[in-house]
Amino acid sequence: MLLIKTNRDTLLKPLQTVTGIVERRQTLPILSNVLIRQNAEKTSFLTTDLEIQIKTIATLDLLPKQDFSLTVSAKKLQDILRSLSADAEVTLTRQDDHLYVKSGKSAFNLQILPAEDFPEVAEEAESEDAITLKQKELKDLLHHVQFAVAQQDIRYYLNGLLLLTDNKQFISVGTDGHRLAYIAAALDKAQKKQEVILPRKAVYELSKLLEDSEEPVTIEYFQNKVRFSFSGIVLTSKVIDGKFPDYNRVIPTRNNKQFEISRQTFLQALQRVSILSNQSEKFRGVRLIVSENNLRIVCKNNEQEEAEEELEINYREEAVDISLNITYLLDLLNNIDSETVLCAFENANSSVLITIPGNDAFKYIVMPMRI
Amino acid sequence: MLLIKTNRDTLLKPLQTVTGIVERRQTLPILSNVLIRQNAEKTSFLTTDLEIQIKTIATLDLLPKQDFSLTVSAKKLQDILRSLSADAEVTLTRQDDHLYVKSGKSAFNLQILPAEDFPEVAEEAESEDAITLKQKELKDLLHHVQFAVAQQDIRYYLNGLLLLTDNKQFISVGTDGHRLAYIAAALDKAQKKQEVILPRKAVYELSKLLEDSEEPVTIEYFQNKVRFSFSGIVLTSKVIDGKFPDYNRVIPTRNNKQFEISRQTFLQALQRVSILSNQSEKFRGVRLIVSENNLRIVCKNNEQEEAEEELEINYREEAVDISLNITYLLDLLNNIDSETVLCAFENANSSVLITIPGNDAFKYIVMPMRI
Repeated sequence: MLLIKTNRDTLLKPLQTVTGIVERRQTLPILSNVLIRQNAEKTSFLTTDLEIQIKTIATLDLLPKQDFSLTVSAKKLQDILRSLSADAEVTLTRQDDHLYVKSGKSAFNLQILPAEDFPEVAEEAESEDAITLKQKELKDLLHHVQFAVAQQDIRYYLNGLLLLTDNKQFISVGTDGHRLAYIAAALDKAQKKQEVILPRKAVYELSKLLEDSEEPVTIEYFQNKVRFSFSGIVLTSKVIDGKFPDYNRVIPTRNNKQFEISRQTFLQALQRVSILSNQSEKFRGVRLIVSENNLRIVCKNNEQEEAEEELEINYREEAVDISLNITYLLDLLNNIDSETVLCAFENANSSVLITIPGNDAFKYIVMPMRI
Repeated sequence: MLLIKTNRDTLLKPLQTVTGIVERRQTLPILSNVLIRQNAEKTSFLTTDLEIQIKTIATLDLLPKQDFSLTVSAKKLQDILRSLSADAEVTLTRQDDHLYVKSGKSAFNLQILPAEDFPEVAEEAESEDAITLKQKELKDLLHHVQFAVAQQDIRYYLNGLLLLTDNKQFISVGTDGHRLAYIAAALDKAQKKQEVILPRKAVYELSKLLEDSEEPVTIEYFQNKVRFSFSGIVLTSKVIDGKFPDYNRVIPTRNNKQFEISRQTFLQALQRVSILSNQSEKFRGVRLIVSENNLRIVCKNNEQEEAEEELEINYREEAVDISLNITYLLDLLNNIDSETVLCAFENANSSVLITIPGNDAFKYIVMPMRI
């Protein structure tokens, strides 16, 4: 039975939208598959890893306009389509439990698993408290904070990004317990307070799928799920059930000493000194020695080797010698694109607050470390 | 004591020549280091991994023109130089057992290990039976055969490339026991028979360092070493002590059926069908079904999935159905750049001989496999 006849790109695009979360090796074979379902002249593509589900709808040129649903290996179908030329005509034909993909003199025969066995998440009704942002706004928000999210921490609630709607603010916070990135955006109208912890993988996937456009993305909070809808894509993710740390207590308020510095200059100096840090260790210390109009940056390693940089800054306060994890500074400076950053601190034992001049919405806090 | 004052690139270039063989983690710390030695106004850079030694000589602008020798971490010094701007002026100063690298407001202090402790290979006298090729000729030879060399095979003599000088021929052969790549080059004058098995890593390093130029490379064979000299670089490698298989017995002579095919068309068809091979297995079978003016290429995997391609060829002999490891075909077609290839065979159980039309020097043999 001929199901679909279209050109390669029409089929490849929706497939690429949903394959990001699919792992090639699965304990449950059907999780490697994409659910393709045609209904009322619309074709939907759906994948899941049991935590995240992505669905997209495409309008294909269908010859026989008939309803069907089946699942086949998402990556293999994608690889097959990719291997064909961009304008190739492709037909998908079903025969028993196999799907034949044909194009010119190439033929591929893929195993079908029944659509009924696919673990699709039941669709929630529309939330009354949905909030809407521009896609580029949410993409930018995520970009500013996602690098600070913990990785496989036993404090499982740190392995995700806090998304918080409160009154007229939408706030996002990532932290691994030693550093914290915070960003806020203004909402058009007041909203009731809702918050979730979105798992790393969902953050990453969402970030990839969001476009740098003015088009809207709708966020809906449910019992233990959150749903993002944008550009014909619906990404539904389970959320992490836990209590996110109170970020307000972490943001320092008495950091009255500060200097502004070119992001690129600071980044390059840190990259240079990091050559002589203990590269294989998780915590690689760097000393920032701040004195009158001068910043000295010093790294040492276990082999008695040492690197030092001197930069001119505008600073007239008391001299301070702060030790930080250099990775945390590099992470920030690599992930933002402002011209300069502002570093504020109180003393050698207080957290450093880094902000972007002219951008009140963003805050980055790094705890001091002992070298 | 100021040792060297020069611009970054003058120092970085010779260092990059020698650092390829240095592993960052070493059981013997001095093996991470580069031996820098200045003698009679020449500065040499030397590294070793105890198997391979690379030495290069640079002429630096030296202020004090004094002799010295020391060893410091090769990768760290390289990373430091790379992190500086291309035209930066750099000074190297020795103070006790530390080397200070300074440039502008950047300062690095590296640990020195004594030059006397460096395991330098004693230099052999010049060989009387040295042979000389053009660099681009040797580079091209290696490129045609190195991909066929075995990796960590227990038959240790397969983990290197055979280099053989015999009369007026220079021959190179790589094999892993299931496929074999052979290439020959003509020498200007007759030479005595000499052969070595050059380890993989040395082949790879040599390949990287050789330039695509008409400049000469001299090859000298010693007791259990071989030395390559070119462009101010001397690469000395231990050779593998063993008996290389007799490649003459492997090259089929009765392959009277053959077809010529576009390399790109063949490669792309193989890449497409390989999507439905058993991707995780070492031996991934493909069937080449040759019949009158037709080549069918078929791959199956353990999930009952199948891919098939049909290509038109010029062939009027008896039909043959040959099974091969698809990886061996992909390796070849990815590593050569000819317009077409010629596939010759006898029957389903004989080896396939692949050659490049118009190039008698190259032969590639793939053994059949049972699928």
